[in-house]
Amino acid sequence: MKKAFFALAALLVMENANAQQRARDFGFEFGVMSPGPLNAITDVEGVKVGHITLAEDDDIRTGVTAILPHDENIFQNKIPAAIYLGNGFGKLVGYSQVKELGNLEGPIILTNTLSVAAGIEGVVDYTFSFEENSNVYSVNAVVGETNDGYLNAIRKRAVKPSHVLQAIEDAKGGEVEEGNVGAGTGTVAFGFKGGIGTASRKLPENLGGYTVGVLVQSNFGGVLTVDGLPVGKHLEQYSFKNQLESADGSIMIVIATDAPVGERNLERIAKRGMMGLAKTGGIASNGSGDYVIAFSTAKELRISHSEKPLTLSPTSTLRNDDMSALFLAAIEATEEAIINSLFAAEDMKGRDGHEVKALPINEAIKLKEKKGR
Amino acid sequence: MKKAFFALAALLVMENANAQQRARDFGFEFGVMSPGPLNAITDVEGVKVGHITLAEDDDIRTGVTAILPHDENIFQNKIPAAIYLGNGFGKLVGYSQVKELGNLEGPIILTNTLSVAAGIEGVVDYTFSFEENSNVYSVNAVVGETNDGYLNAIRKRAVKPSHVLQAIEDAKGGEVEEGNVGAGTGTVAFGFKGGIGTASRKLPENLGGYTVGVLVQSNFGGVLTVDGLPVGKHLEQYSFKNQLESADGSIMIVIATDAPVGERNLERIAKRGMMGLAKTGGIASNGSGDYVIAFSTAKELRISHSEKPLTLSPTSTLRNDDMSALFLAAIEATEEAIINSLFAAEDMKGRDGHEVKALPINEAIKLKEKKGR
Amino acid sequence: MKKAFFALAALLVMENANAQQRARDFGFEFGVMSPGPLNAITDVEGVKVGHITLAEDDDIRTGVTAILPHDENIFQNKIPAAIYLGNGFGKLVGYSQVKELGNLEGPIILTNTLSVAAGIEGVVDYTFSFEENSNVYSVNAVVGETNDGYLNAIRKRAVKPSHVLQAIEDAKGGEVEEGNVGAGTGTVAFGFKGGIGTASRKLPENLGGYTVGVLVQSNFGGVLTVDGLPVGKHLEQYSFKNQLESADGSIMIVIATDAPVGERNLERIAKRGMMGLAKTGGIASNGSGDYVIAFSTAKELRISHSEKPLTLSPTSTLRNDDMSALFLAAIEATEEAIINSLFAAEDMKGRDGHEVKALPINEAIKLKEKKGR
Amino acid sequence: MKKAFFALAALLVMENANAQQRARDFGFEFGVMSPGPLNAITDVEGVKVGHITLAEDDDIRTGVTAILPHDENIFQNKIPAAIYLGNGFGKLVGYSQVKELGNLEGPIILTNTLSVAAGIEGVVDYTFSFEENSNVYSVNAVVGETNDGYLNAIRKRAVKPSHVLQAIEDAKGGEVEEGNVGAGTGTVAFGFKGGIGTASRKLPENLGGYTVGVLVQSNFGGVLTVDGLPVGKHLEQYSFKNQLESADGSIMIVIATDAPVGERNLERIAKRGMMGLAKTGGIASNGSGDYVIAFSTAKELRISHSEKPLTLSPTSTLRNDDMSALFLAAIEATEEAIINSLFAAEDMKGRDGHEVKALPINEAIKLKEKKGR
Repeated sequence: MKKAFFALAALLVMENANAQQRARDFGFEFGVMSPGPLNAITDVEGVKVGHITLAEDDDIRTGVTAILPHDENIFQNKIPAAIYLGNGFGKLVGYSQVKELGNLEGPIILTNTLSVAAGIEGVVDYTFSFEENSNVYSVNAVVGETNDGYLNAIRKRAVKPSHVLQAIEDAKGGEVEEGNVGAGTGTVAFGFKGGIGTASRKLPENLGGYTVGVLVQSNFGGVLTVDGLPVGKHLEQYSFKNQLESADGSIMIVIATDAPVGERNLERIAKRGMMGLAKTGGIASNGSGDYVIAFSTAKELRISHSEKPLTLSPTSTLRNDDMSALFLAAIEATEEAIINSLFAAEDMKGRDGHEVKALPINEAIKLKEKKGR
Repeated sequence: MKKAFFALAALLVMENANAQQRARDFGFEFGVMSPGPLNAITDVEGVKVGHITLAEDDDIRTGVTAILPHDENIFQNKIPAAIYLGNGFGKLVGYSQVKELGNLEGPIILTNTLSVAAGIEGVVDYTFSFEENSNVYSVNAVVGETNDGYLNAIRKRAVKPSHVLQAIEDAKGGEVEEGNVGAGTGTVAFGFKGGIGTASRKLPENLGGYTVGVLVQSNFGGVLTVDGLPVGKHLEQYSFKNQLESADGSIMIVIATDAPVGERNLERIAKRGMMGLAKTGGIASNGSGDYVIAFSTAKELRISHSEKPLTLSPTSTLRNDDMSALFLAAIEATEEAIINSLFAAEDMKGRDGHEVKALPINEAIKLKEKKGR
Repeated sequence: MKKAFFALAALLVMENANAQQRARDFGFEFGVMSPGPLNAITDVEGVKVGHITLAEDDDIRTGVTAILPHDENIFQNKIPAAIYLGNGFGKLVGYSQVKELGNLEGPIILTNTLSVAAGIEGVVDYTFSFEENSNVYSVNAVVGETNDGYLNAIRKRAVKPSHVLQAIEDAKGGEVEEGNVGAGTGTVAFGFKGGIGTASRKLPENLGGYTVGVLVQSNFGGVLTVDGLPVGKHLEQYSFKNQLESADGSIMIVIATDAPVGERNLERIAKRGMMGLAKTGGIASNGSGDYVIAFSTAKELRISHSEKPLTLSPTSTLRNDDMSALFLAAIEATEEAIINSLFAAEDMKGRDGHEVKALPINEAIKLKEKKGR
Repeated sequence: MKKAFFALAALLVMENANAQQRARDFGFEFGVMSPGPLNAITDVEGVKVGHITLAEDDDIRTGVTAILPHDENIFQNKIPAAIYLGNGFGKLVGYSQVKELGNLEGPIILTNTLSVAAGIEGVVDYTFSFEENSNVYSVNAVVGETNDGYLNAIRKRAVKPSHVLQAIEDAKGGEVEEGNVGAGTGTVAFGFKGGIGTASRKLPENLGGYTVGVLVQSNFGGVLTVDGLPVGKHLEQYSFKNQLESADGSIMIVIATDAPVGERNLERIAKRGMMGLAKTGGIASNGSGDYVIAFSTAKELRISHSEKPLTLSPTSTLRNDDMSALFLAAIEATEEAIINSLFAAEDMKGRDGHEVKALPINEAIKLKEKKGR
C-alpha cells in the first residue's frame, strides 16, 4: 500500500516535469517585469531549496521545505532579514529575534502547524552539527507553517527533527519542485489543491539588475483571480459562496533578493508580499496565518557572529529611494508563485477519505481565451 | 479669470452628475459582494462627508475633505478606531493616540501635505466651538494628506483653518461627490487625474447584514488594473515605463462600518485596505504615504468622554471569527472606490502649466469589451 | 551522587521555607501600594503555578515553570492577553497569534532557551488530553525562556515534553516557591544567582480593589538596585565593571490581573513590566530576551472557542482612564518579584564547575541600615 | 505688569545661573557612568538647543524648545533617527515617516499640546528658507509636546510659527538652560514644577568613547525618586496619594549620540529612555504622552537628499553586540535629565491663580543626608 503510493508519487512527479504546468507556459502574465532564468527563488544566487515529502499510509500528507540563503555556516554568517505579520493567526517561531536584531541565523523551515517544534529541533541540530558552532548555546530557529489538517492526520505529528535535517541537507539550487511537495504536500488554496510555488523577477540593469525570488506555501481562501481573470467566480468556488470559510488557511511567503537591502527596507519588501497575495484574490481571512519573510543574500551585508566588539564594518545598502522597483518585483513574483503552486498541484486524497481536486487548469485557459487574451 | 474658472468648475460638476461616470455603471464589477444603495461611505448610517474645493487662479488646485462618523459631539462621544500605516512616507497626524487609546475623538480631515497644520487648527477650532467642550485642553486631530504639488502651488499653503471648519460644517449624508473635489482636487493616480472616490459593500443578512463604506483620496503610482483588466499596460502608462516613478504619491483610505468591531479588529480591517489598493495595481512605492483609517459607528461602542472612573459599560463586539466577511468587503470597496476616483476625475490644468489628463474611460471600456466581459 | 544532590536540594528547600527570605521580611519596601495576602501571582484568584526542577548529575540545572490562568479547559475558554517585546533577543513562541487575536489559549510555559520545542510539545499534548478538544488541529503554545547555559548543560536539552506536562499538572494556587526552582533553577541575575520570584499588589477599593500579580524568571545583568539602594555598586558587581556583559541574559515577566481589562490595555500593562525591571537596575542589554506577558482572569471576558458565529457577548471592560493604578501596581510588583527571586536564590554549582553565588543578603541589609532606612 | 514679570524672570535666570542647582552639584549620583563636560545634550558634538519662553500677562506660561542635530541644512543632510512610543496619549507629529524611512529631516521642536500646528508651520518655514530647498514640496516636521494647561492658558494658542523659527535660529551649543524655560515654562512633574532638563554620559574609550546626551521636557506624575531616595513618599506627594492623577501629564525625551548607530538600534536606545523615566518614579500613566526621539549625529551616516539613485554609500555602523553600554548611558542620562529639570525649576504662578511650587531641594538633600549617602 505504502510502496504503491510512493510509486504513484514518483509517476506524478515525472508527469509534472513533462507537463510544464507553470502558469506562464500557458500564456498567463503577471505584471510588467521579467522573470529570472528559472522563474524561481533559486534565481537569487546561492539560494537553495530542499523538500521532504511525507505521503504515507492513507492519512499522512505533509512535509518540510527548507530554504537556505547561502552555502556557508549561516549562524556564523548571519544575513539581514525581516518578517512581516500579514495576519498573525499562526505559529511561526523566530519572529521577535529577527525583529529585534534584524537578521537571520539559520535556514528557514516551512512545515505544518503542529510540527513547528520538530522544525526548531531540526534547526538546532543542524546548527550544532558545525564544529565551529561548538560553543553556541542559543539559536533562533525560524519555522513557518500552514495547517494541512484537512488532508493530513496532523495530530499524529509525523514530521520529526530528522526530516527537517534531511530537508536542509537535500537543499539545492536550480529548478524548484512545486505543487504537492515538501511543506505543500497537504495544503489547500481557494478550495483547490495548493502547495509550493515559486517565481522571480529580474530588474532591468538601469534599476540595478537585482533579482527578487519568491517561494510560497499556499493554503488559504478567497476569490481566486488568475492574471486578473475571475476564475473562482467562473467556477463558482470562492469564500462565502461554498462554505469555504472553514478552509481559511494560511500562507507562508519567503522573499529572497541579492540587492543590498537592510532590515528596515526588507520589512517594507515583505509587506508587499501581502499585496501580491491580494492580486490572486486572497483576503487574509481571520483564521489565516500569513507571514512574509524577506532576506538579502548580498555578501557585503553578512554579519559575522564572532566579530570583535566595536568593529565597524563598512557596508553599502540601497537607499529608500531605490526601493520601489524591488517592491513591484516582490508583488509580481508573489502573485505568480501562488498561481504556480495551484497549477503544479495535483488531486490529493488524504485522511478520513478527504479529497481535494487540483485547479482545473483547462477551465482557466478557456476563460482566458474567451476573454480574448 | 477666477470667476470664469469657477463657472467652468460648476459646469463640470453638472456634467459629472449627469454622466454617471461610476465604474459600475459601465459594467465593471469588483468582487463578489453587493454594494449598498449609494455605493458610498455614506451607506454607513450617520457618516457624513464635506468637501471644500480650492481651484483658484491658475495655480491653486487643492482642498479639504472632512469625514464625520456621527452627528453628535465626537469629542464627548468617541468611537473605536485604528490607523494602519501601509507605507508611512507621509505626514498624517494623530496616529499615536489612536494607536494607544483605540479611539477617534474628532472628524477625519484629508487635505494636502503642507496643510496638515491648518487641518489641526480647524479640528481644534471645531472642537472648541462646542459649549460642552469648554474645559477641553487637548484634542487629537486626525489629519491625512497626499501631495498635490504637481498641479497645486502647494508651497503657498492655500488651505486655511477656516476651510477645514467649512468642510466639517458642510458635511452631509447621501451621495458623495467624487473626482476633482475637496482633498482630491489636485491629485494624480497612475499618471491620470486622481481624486476622491467612494464605494461600499453590504453583507448578506446571514453574515450580519453590516455595511462597510470606503472613501479614498487617490494620488499614487503603479500599474493600473481595472476589474482585473490591464488598462495601464494597454495604455502603456505605468510605473517604470513612463518615468512615473517621480509621481509616486500616496493614498488615504478611510473605512467606516456599522459593525460592532473593536479597535484591534478595526486595525485588521484597515490592513485589508492595502489589499484593495493592490488589486488596482498600486504598489505602495517608496515615496507613498499610504494610510488606512478604520472606525466603527456602532452606537453601543461609543466612549463617553465624561464617564465616571470605574464605570463598566457593557459592550458587545463581533468575535475574531466573524471578521473574514468584513475583510472581504473592505478589500472590494477599497478597490472600487479607487477606480471610481479615476472614473470621476476630469482633465486638470494647474501650476506652471502642468496638465494631467483624466483616464480615457472609453479605452478601458473598449478593452473590457475586447476581453469579452 | 545524584541522590545526594536531591537530598541537599530538599534540605535547601526546607531551609528556604523556614528562612522567610523575602525582601519585604527584611523591611524593604517597593513603592506605595499594598501587596495581596501571599504577595504572589497566586493572589489573583484562580491562577496556579507549577514547577519542575531538573538538578541532576553535575551539569543539569534547569526546569520548567507553568502558569495557568484558570481551572477550566483554557483552549475552550480563552482569556484576553498581550505580550510586550521588551527586548526581543529571545526565543519565546506564540507571540504573533496573541498579538493578532488578543487572547491566550493555553498555559504559559517558562523554561530554558533550547527547550522551547519541548514546551510546545507539552502544551499541545496537554491540550489534546481534553476529550472536548478532540477535533482541535491548531494550538498556540506560549513558551518563554531564558538562557541558563552558564550553570546548565543546555545543549543536552534535558527538558522533555513530559516535564512540561508534569509542571502543568502540578500547578496549584497558594504560596509560590521562589529561587532555584522550575525555570529559575539555573539562572543568573546581576552576577548573582537568579531564579523565580513573585509579588503582587492589591488596589484600594476606591480604585477598584483589583489584584495584580507578577511572576518572573530572572536571568539578566545591569546595576543592581534594591528598593533604591545601590547594592550592585556597593558590592562592586555590575555591568561594565566586572565583565558581566557576557551574562547579559534575559527576563520573562508574567503579569496576571483579575481586573476586566482588554488586550490593548493589557499590552499597556505589560509595557510597565519593563519599568519595574528598570527600577531594579536592569538595562535590557543587547543580548537580553525580555518579554512581558499580561493576561486578565476576569470571567466575563472569557472567550468561548465554540461559540456560534455572530454571537454578540456583552462584556464590560475598564476604560483607558482607569488604567493608571494598574500600571503602578504592575511596576511595583515586577520590581519586588525580581528582588524576591534574588533573595530566595541559593548558591549553585553547575556544569564545568561553574558556580554562582547567591546575593549576600546581609550586605544589602547592612547597606540599608547604614542608609538609615 | 508684563514688564515687571519679565524683569522678575530675568532675575530668576541670573539666580539660577549662580545657584548651580543641578542635582549632581548636591552630591546626587545617577548610575555608574561619567557625564560629559557639560552634562548636557550639547556634549554631543554639533547639537544645538534654542529656547523661546513665553511668560506674558498672568496666564501665558509656555514656549518652544528646538533641538538641532547639526549645523548644515538638515533637509539636505538627513540623519538616522527613531521615535519610540512610550505611551502614545499625545499629539507628537512626524512619527510615521521617521518609522518608515529611518531618518529625520529637520530640527526637533518641543512645545505645548495645542501648538503642534505652529510647530509644523515653523519647521516648514525654516526648511523653505534655504535657497537649495527651493524645489522641496514635502517636509516631515517632528514636533513633540506636553500639556502645560494647568499654568498656561493653552486654549489661547500663544505660540506662533515665528516663535518656532526664532527658537531654531537661537539654537546654540554650550550650556543648556534648564527649568522654567522654552517648552518647559509651564510644565509640572510629580506635582512639583517641572521643565527642561538635560544630562549626558561619555563612554570609556574601551567601549568606544561615544557620548549620549539627553534633553527632557518633564510634565508627568508618579512617585518621585531621586537617586533611589523616596522623596515623593517622604514629602507625601505622589500619584494616588494627593489626587495627582489629574496631572498625569507627559514627557518628551530627546536622545542624541555621536555613536554611528542605525535607525533600528536607535529605536532600541529610545526604548531605554522609558527605563530612565521609571527610575525617577514615573509610571507612564494613562493620560501620558511619553515619546522618546533618538538620533545619531555620526557624519558618515548622513543621508544626502539629492543623491543619485542606486548610489551605494559605504557606511559603518555599530553592531548589535555593541549596544549595551549605549543603553545604560541612555538610561542614566535620562534619569538625571529629569531630576535636573526639577532641580532647576522655580515656583510658578499662572492662569486662574494656579500656582505650582518647585521641588523643595533642601528636603531632598536632608533626606539624602539622613540616609547616610
